[in-house]
Amino acid sequence: MNELDTVGLAASIIRGLGKGRVEALTDGIFATVMTVLVLGLRVPTVPPNSTLSQELLNIWPSVLSYAMSFVILGVYWVGHHAMFHYVRATNRVFLWINILFLLTVGFIPFSTSLLGSHSGERAAVIVYGSNLILCGLSLYATWWYAASNHRLVDPDLDPHVVSLAKRRILVGPLVYLAAIGFSFLDTRISIILYILTLPFYILPGHIDIHITRSQH
Amino acid sequence: MNELDTVGLAASIIRGLGKGRVEALTDGIFATVMTVLVLGLRVPTVPPNSTLSQELLNIWPSVLSYAMSFVILGVYWVGHHAMFHYVRATNRVFLWINILFLLTVGFIPFSTSLLGSHSGERAAVIVYGSNLILCGLSLYATWWYAASNHRLVDPDLDPHVVSLAKRRILVGPLVYLAAIGFSFLDTRISIILYILTLPFYILPGHIDIHITRSQH
Amino acid sequence: MNELDTVGLAASIIRGLGKGRVEALTDGIFATVMTVLVLGLRVPTVPPNSTLSQELLNIWPSVLSYAMSFVILGVYWVGHHAMFHYVRATNRVFLWINILFLLTVGFIPFSTSLLGSHSGERAAVIVYGSNLILCGLSLYATWWYAASNHRLVDPDLDPHVVSLAKRRILVGPLVYLAAIGFSFLDTRISIILYILTLPFYILPGHIDIHITRSQH
Amino acid sequence: MNELDTVGLAASIIRGLGKGRVEALTDGIFATVMTVLVLGLRVPTVPPNSTLSQELLNIWPSVLSYAMSFVILGVYWVGHHAMFHYVRATNRVFLWINILFLLTVGFIPFSTSLLGSHSGERAAVIVYGSNLILCGLSLYATWWYAASNHRLVDPDLDPHVVSLAKRRILVGPLVYLAAIGFSFLDTRISIILYILTLPFYILPGHIDIHITRSQH
Repeated sequence: MNELDTVGLAASIIRGLGKGRVEALTDGIFATVMTVLVLGLRVPTVPPNSTLSQELLNIWPSVLSYAMSFVILGVYWVGHHAMFHYVRATNRVFLWINILFLLTVGFIPFSTSLLGSHSGERAAVIVYGSNLILCGLSLYATWWYAASNHRLVDPDLDPHVVSLAKRRILVGPLVYLAAIGFSFLDTRISIILYILTLPFYILPGHIDIHITRSQH
Repeated sequence: MNELDTVGLAASIIRGLGKGRVEALTDGIFATVMTVLVLGLRVPTVPPNSTLSQELLNIWPSVLSYAMSFVILGVYWVGHHAMFHYVRATNRVFLWINILFLLTVGFIPFSTSLLGSHSGERAAVIVYGSNLILCGLSLYATWWYAASNHRLVDPDLDPHVVSLAKRRILVGPLVYLAAIGFSFLDTRISIILYILTLPFYILPGHIDIHITRSQH
Repeated sequence: MNELDTVGLAASIIRGLGKGRVEALTDGIFATVMTVLVLGLRVPTVPPNSTLSQELLNIWPSVLSYAMSFVILGVYWVGHHAMFHYVRATNRVFLWINILFLLTVGFIPFSTSLLGSHSGERAAVIVYGSNLILCGLSLYATWWYAASNHRLVDPDLDPHVVSLAKRRILVGPLVYLAAIGFSFLDTRISIILYILTLPFYILPGHIDIHITRSQH
Repeated sequence: MNELDTVGLAASIIRGLGKGRVEALTDGIFATVMTVLVLGLRVPTVPPNSTLSQELLNIWPSVLSYAMSFVILGVYWVGHHAMFHYVRATNRVFLWINILFLLTVGFIPFSTSLLGSHSGERAAVIVYGSNLILCGLSLYATWWYAASNHRLVDPDLDPHVVSLAKRRILVGPLVYLAAIGFSFLDTRISIILYILTLPFYILPGHIDIHITRSQH
């Protein structure tokens, strides 16, 4: 076997890390992160002059943080898989951008727990928002790398869909950035903005309406 | 490629999120939730005037809560998969109803840990029961959405099976609601009711007996 | 569709829960349990009159418990899959025996953490051993149910292999029972016995030697 | 069925544990370990004379440890799968070497948490480095066992690739050993060395450059 074939083999090692494996690791990390979120909720101990009901009502910011982060993770999971639907191959750079994305996803339980425990504090709101921005940007980088010049995606993929998806991914980070700015006014505005991105991503309307309109 | 095709592509992004992916996320979350339950059990420290055996006997409500929740999660997992056996396609709404179901499932370790630490308290019994009701109702919504007008299920699926499954799912939430009511009398009745739903779902008898009888 | 077909459908709901799903849940639970074990190890805080090295040496029983339980879980995982290699179908009873097995597996992080924190105490040794006995017996029940009258296994499976596997599974619970007995003498004997079962299950020799000998 | 066939069956039990199962357990453990890392980060409580921002800045060693370990786990995951790309069969010994590898991987959340809490202490740096060395050596053992005499790998696999992969795996443990040595001078040098191995493994250049050069 000559050196050229060896190069081919070395390259195929990484090509062998097909979509399947990467999706398995990604699904596993999302499933665990979404579950581990709940560990940020501490079962309250009841001081003498209080009741369990009262103590449970006091942890509502933690419960809200749990639910918000769970749904945000749902958004990223749906986005990741919608993206991988078009991916035809992987390579080393793509693999590592994806691991970087998972690194930011894996940090969400900490940010969520921080936000739940210190919901009125600007520092907690900023850490949470920055975490979401990094998730969004690394997901954007994954798509940008895969779709540029149809590097790793289906060659028949319409460039219009590529750029629509790019813009759609960027909406989150932009709103989160605004939310961080508003935290200097009132941290409650930031949290409302974090929540308001959810219907944008969950409801089917946006892309479809845009496209349907342009047909007239 | 014209705009119509782009619409088709945008829709196929979500159709591409086939059963397989959704099942992988669901199985991953169930596996992690069932495991994370045990983290609600704290290894006791032994005060000077006690023994480890004594302290271990004192945590039996936590152990019971662990086992009860593990088996309840088993029931929901079996139910979810029995349902997915008939599902032929997914769409965005279905995907998000399923994520909502997983959100309620992911909360169970907290409710369980709460019930284990405060087993005699009505607030803990109500939170636990409400969590189970929300699990049941969101599983019902998943089935209702998929099976209405055979939207996403096998077109040959007998409507009789659809409605049998619906009624079967609703038994849980109804009993849990009664259990919450009884918690105002005695929280032990509630816990007995939570446990009594288990043989109903586990034993093969119910549906089969009903059907076998109607054949005579 | 007549009632008879409905019965068929109701039965196929459970048959639809094929090996694949059960294995996915089982692998997910094993992976999480094996990982969660490490959470029983607390990072030591260093009191003024000590050093980190000293404190780390003090937690060696926890590290030993971690490694022992990890390898024992490896044994049960290998055993479970070797068994499932022959399984051709599942049914409701089989499914629930398997969930019972997973319930006992999911309890191991607690027993391990208990043994690590109270390694010299008989109560901890007994809880750990009882947990392992229940794992072994529920794995035995799984195999017994599947293999009796070739209910769910490959019809060509040699009855000799069935009974060899049964005896092999029972060795663990018997040794663990003896270990519990010896804990009344010295808990260190118990722990040595827990460890001694590992080479029995890991080394390939036993069955093969037995079979090879009987050929002479 | 004669005794010889029984031997065949007993052997096929283990052969039945094909690549798929082992990869599922491995992916599950990696996904959980990578997620569980974040639990080593404690949400800070704010003492009266401090601010949340200040307390968050104080935990930067923990955040760095989290990110470093996440990426190192990424390296091992990529390495494991690149290796499994060539594996054609498994046997009992191979299975257990792999479980040993997973045992060392599963310990990383503890080492990481230890390093994050005691980043300036030599004992923490040594435990962390030793953990990484054991990961590397057990991955080396997996590859050595599978590839020696093409025992379990593709018979067409070029021996040059086998030895390149071996050397590549050993770079990590060697650098980690040096890092442990330097910890007696300054623990910061050790941490820099731990980080410096990452670009070596992540960047595509190394093997390719080496091979490309030798073609001139």
